[in-house]
Amino acid sequence: MTSPFPLSAATVDYVDGSTRVYAIIGHPVQQVRSPQAITFELRRRGLNAILLPFDVAPASFDNVMTSLLAIGNLDGLIITVPHKIRARDLCSRVGPLAEISGSASVIARTADDKWVGELFDGMGCVAAIRNRGVDLEGRRILLLGVGGAGAGIAVELARHRPAEIHIHDPDRAKAMHVIERLSAHFPAQSFSVGLPALDGLDVVINASPVGMLDPERMPIEASRFPSHLVVMDVITDPAPTRLLRTAEESGCIAVYGREMFDSQIAGACDFLLAARQVGVNDVRFDRQPARLNQSE
Amino acid sequence: MTSPFPLSAATVDYVDGSTRVYAIIGHPVQQVRSPQAITFELRRRGLNAILLPFDVAPASFDNVMTSLLAIGNLDGLIITVPHKIRARDLCSRVGPLAEISGSASVIARTADDKWVGELFDGMGCVAAIRNRGVDLEGRRILLLGVGGAGAGIAVELARHRPAEIHIHDPDRAKAMHVIERLSAHFPAQSFSVGLPALDGLDVVINASPVGMLDPERMPIEASRFPSHLVVMDVITDPAPTRLLRTAEESGCIAVYGREMFDSQIAGACDFLLAARQVGVNDVRFDRQPARLNQSE
Repeated sequence: MTSPFPLSAATVDYVDGSTRVYAIIGHPVQQVRSPQAITFELRRRGLNAILLPFDVAPASFDNVMTSLLAIGNLDGLIITVPHKIRARDLCSRVGPLAEISGSASVIARTADDKWVGELFDGMGCVAAIRNRGVDLEGRRILLLGVGGAGAGIAVELARHRPAEIHIHDPDRAKAMHVIERLSAHFPAQSFSVGLPALDGLDVVINASPVGMLDPERMPIEASRFPSHLVVMDVITDPAPTRLLRTAEESGCIAVYGREMFDSQIAGACDFLLAARQVGVNDVRFDRQPARLNQSE
Repeated sequence: MTSPFPLSAATVDYVDGSTRVYAIIGHPVQQVRSPQAITFELRRRGLNAILLPFDVAPASFDNVMTSLLAIGNLDGLIITVPHKIRARDLCSRVGPLAEISGSASVIARTADDKWVGELFDGMGCVAAIRNRGVDLEGRRILLLGVGGAGAGIAVELARHRPAEIHIHDPDRAKAMHVIERLSAHFPAQSFSVGLPALDGLDVVINASPVGMLDPERMPIEASRFPSHLVVMDVITDPAPTRLLRTAEESGCIAVYGREMFDSQIAGACDFLLAARQVGVNDVRFDRQPARLNQSE
């Protein structure tokens, strides 16, 4: 510009007209950490992109999902409570973990403007436990809660051949339904419904929201755990939850929701960026299992 | 946390689960500067907020606008080409400048989840010219283009009592329609349609997109302008446009789109934040005229 005139130099440097948009859809959203972590990871890879929280109530979810495809520079979504099951239904195509679990946690726009989804919760949960040196093969595991996250964790647990997977959910029919589906895919795996004595378990995983909204509540009643127990909580905030605090006071290994979360970031970004490059029928879902196998 | 375990410290500090979302909706959006400027201004006021570009084609605009109300933490929108006229129609209530012009550039969510809109283009354009020491009263003005931005500028020009407002648009019927509406509100103002000789003018304002997509095109054919002419271009990128470059080479005062843009930022943020606090029937539209009066 050759003319001098007063202009504000007042701008930020992390967003402009070419920024690609990602969002995490949940209800509520205040507790989510994807905006910070996924945005960091996308930018580390050289992309001009930001992931924002979108607070969407269940009644509006279907309409919002359809309309978001009409925002041309919106490339993908992270899906959280309570939308993961509905998100899977709205995808034109899903990967095997979403298919078996019935829910999706990452939704990408394909080059031909379809939604394609996969579930990454299970991968992150199992990777977090294994990163603490705990092998799941032959172990007796109790999983608390089989909503979207819990169902995905159940699938991934089954892939690692534990001796027993106990599933407890306030909605017993839902737990039965998950076991029915999993049994078809993992016929050799032993499943049971209910709440066994803690002495007979090796690993307890909380995949329910109990402890998120009320930090003093616990998903199981216990003032102390057997010290051999590995206790994991998928909740990222508060940290530690009362469940994990009790586990640590009991001398247990306590695995935090944030560890699971961190394990999912890279895999989710891989999936979002690869799916965007191809048509819906050419999306490959073998990347995520391949990643798991590498860590074994 | 009392247990040591490996966690990524990899996050950004400008977005989290509580971030309030704003967007600029246009087609295309690469050229817009609101993401940088509005985000800066909102954060300067202490808000955890970001404005992102949303690229939405005209056929999808209505559906997207409805769905965006379902994103609970999305508080407001900037509207740009080609959606300003349709945006006005979708508001439950609009301010006087949007009412007269038939288009809206800023849309706020009210406390009762309605869209309320107002047009800020005209205010910014006139303020930018006046900031260069040019008084519009008694001047002969040519306005090129009466899309959403042009119509708003026409309203604000009329408020400043120029001797004559000439309006030229490839769609002559559209220019006539704008003059018809304006005449009802400003019965003493002289308007005419067409392209007069440049010698008989004081101010030329380009409010058309010519020069935005093809930097070598000009909205009027001229290799040189009379040096007394004030030439303004609403286009912010490229800067200068060929129109402004020619004006500067001719010794004219050349007023940049960015000057107009900067004048709108504070007003738009005032409106967005105030409307969010009240129900749709309690939104006040006298703030923006009051600001103009203060500068007179």
